[in-house]
This record gives sequence, C-alpha cells and structure tokens, in this order.
Amino acid sequence: MEFAEVSSIRRIGNSRRWSDVVIHNDVAYWAEVAEKPDSDVRCQISQVLRQIDTTLAEIGSDRTRVIQVMIHLANLADVTILNEVWDGWVSPGHAPIRACVQSGLAQGYFVEMLITAATP
Amino acid sequence: MEFAEVSSIRRIGNSRRWSDVVIHNDVAYWAEVAEKPDSDVRCQISQVLRQIDTTLAEIGSDRTRVIQVMIHLANLADVTILNEVWDGWVSPGHAPIRACVQSGLAQGYFVEMLITAATP
Amino acid sequence: MEFAEVSSIRRIGNSRRWSDVVIHNDVAYWAEVAEKPDSDVRCQISQVLRQIDTTLAEIGSDRTRVIQVMIHLANLADVTILNEVWDGWVSPGHAPIRACVQSGLAQGYFVEMLITAATP
Repeated sequence: MEFAEVSSIRRIGNSRRWSDVVIHNDVAYWAEVAEKPDSDVRCQISQVLRQIDTTLAEIGSDRTRVIQVMIHLANLADVTILNEVWDGWVSPGHAPIRACVQSGLAQGYFVEMLITAATP
Repeated sequence: MEFAEVSSIRRIGNSRRWSDVVIHNDVAYWAEVAEKPDSDVRCQISQVLRQIDTTLAEIGSDRTRVIQVMIHLANLADVTILNEVWDGWVSPGHAPIRACVQSGLAQGYFVEMLITAATP
Repeated sequence: MEFAEVSSIRRIGNSRRWSDVVIHNDVAYWAEVAEKPDSDVRCQISQVLRQIDTTLAEIGSDRTRVIQVMIHLANLADVTILNEVWDGWVSPGHAPIRACVQSGLAQGYFVEMLITAATP
C-alpha cells in the first residue's frame, strides 16, 4: 500500500533541485518564471502564460482546468500589463482564482506564477 | 470522461478575469481583499473575514472546514491587529494553518488572503 | 454526512490561533519558521527543513511525498545558502515543486516555508 501511495505522485522534470510539475490526486502543481528573462515585463508575462499552456498540454490538461494562479510581480505597477496579457489568455467561463502581490524576485525577473490545475 | 472531469470543476463568479471561487475534489480555493477598502486596517481585516464567512456559506461550508489561509499584509506591523481580529474569528479546535508575510499590495489595500477550504 | 465530512479533516497542534498541520483528502498543509530564530540564515533554513522532517514523520509521510514548498526569504540574496542546504535535503528523484520569493518576515526571521505533502 505504501508503494501504491508513493507511485500515485507523478513528478516531471530532470532537475535534482525541484520538479517541473508534481501531480497528486488529479491536481497538478507547478511554478513558472520566464525561460528567457532577457526581455521586458510584457514579454515575460506572455512567455510564462505560454509556458503554462505547454505544461497543461504535457499533462493532458488545458486552460479550462486551471484552478488557482498565485502571481508575484517584481513591480505591482505592472499589473496593468499583466491584465492586458492575462485577459487574452484566460479561457472564458473557466477563469481560475487569482491573487497578485509584489514580492522580491531574482535579478532580471519581473513575474513568477505558482499554478494549481486539475488533470483529466 | 473528459466532460465529466471538466464539469467536476465548479466556478463561482461573473468576472471574465478571475473566478470568485473554484471548487475541485471537495476543496475550494479563493482570494479575498476588502470589498470596501476605504477603511483602516482593522476594518479591512474584519471585512475580509466576514467575506470569507459569506463565501463559506455560499459553498455550503463553514469556519470548521478552513484548511489554509495565506495572509499578505502591506505592513507586517499590522500583525497585532490581525491577530486580535483573527482570534475572534477562528473556530476553536478547527484553526486552519496560517502563513503571514509582508508583500506589496494594490494602493489602499492593507491585507489580501488566499484561502483553501474543504467543502461538504 | 456532515459529521463524516468534518471528521475527514485532521488537525494537529494545540494553538488556538492556528493548527500546526491540517490534513484533508490525503494532503497535508503546514507552515514552518525556525523554532529557534536566534541564529543565522543557514541555521534557520536547516532548522526549518529538520522541522519539516519531524512533521512528515508525525503524519506518517516522508521526503519522497512532498508536493510543493513555497519559500519566503527575508533577503533573496540568501537563495545561495538556501540551495546549498536544500540540495542536501531533497530526496533524489522526489523533488517537490518550489517557488522562492523575497517577502517581509517577522523581526529576526530569515525564512518561512509553506508546505504541501501527500500522506500515506
């Protein structure tokens, strides 16, 4: 039974430090920052949302199943840009809950998102 | 089966940008800031906790089923006031886990809470 | 049925203000700060990870079942020290997802972690 439980946790990714995605009980958890941070905030936000799409596809899920997105912005004034890009990304009728705060992020990063999504 | 899965996610709220509450696998997720932020920190905290009660009632849950509350304060010095109001709100014997940090919040807001609660 | 649901939430801890751990649907949620904060950042991080081990053992889980760790550092420059200690702690092949941001923490605290883990 213990074995069954351990194997019910699915981890994706090759880093020793963290998993890219962890799935448990039909819920996927992951964090995203822009893979190419040498760009402005709008581009970083677009990248992060595209990366979320890629991860959703990888786990057989999609934008209609996103549960929660916790957003950390390096500058809260960027929320206007966030909303512009975000509004074009959200699946109408399937919006996740969202919290957005200003936090200190690693040098060069404007946004970090922590995502919870349902898997099929 | 895909249809069944999508319909297993329940979303409440009319905003295109975010849902007010998302429920999946008997767990509800939502965020709260004061609906009337033109007030002091004590009033905002009281408002947010009352709003949590309203949402709990709306989803058929109550204070005994709150799992986790992640609290963002604009000024960590307000934790004293937070605790005073919080201690009168928590259901004895059913306290959630709680983390509280200082983060940048939108102009005029003193507190933002991210809630996870079990549904019946 | 209501009784059954309420009892499906397990809470550990004696504080009226918060639970040390809440378990629901085979998922445990808790927050950790160093129990002895009168120490440097490396020591606080080591303490927090040891405290996580203690809690995992208490709930019959272990490092292979950690799902998500949200890390708040008082100084993001401490991420180098965090990684050194963290890399020696993570169970190879079972790394959780991780987000790490700089947030304001209570006086004397360098790190706060919010943990989600699967229970057996």
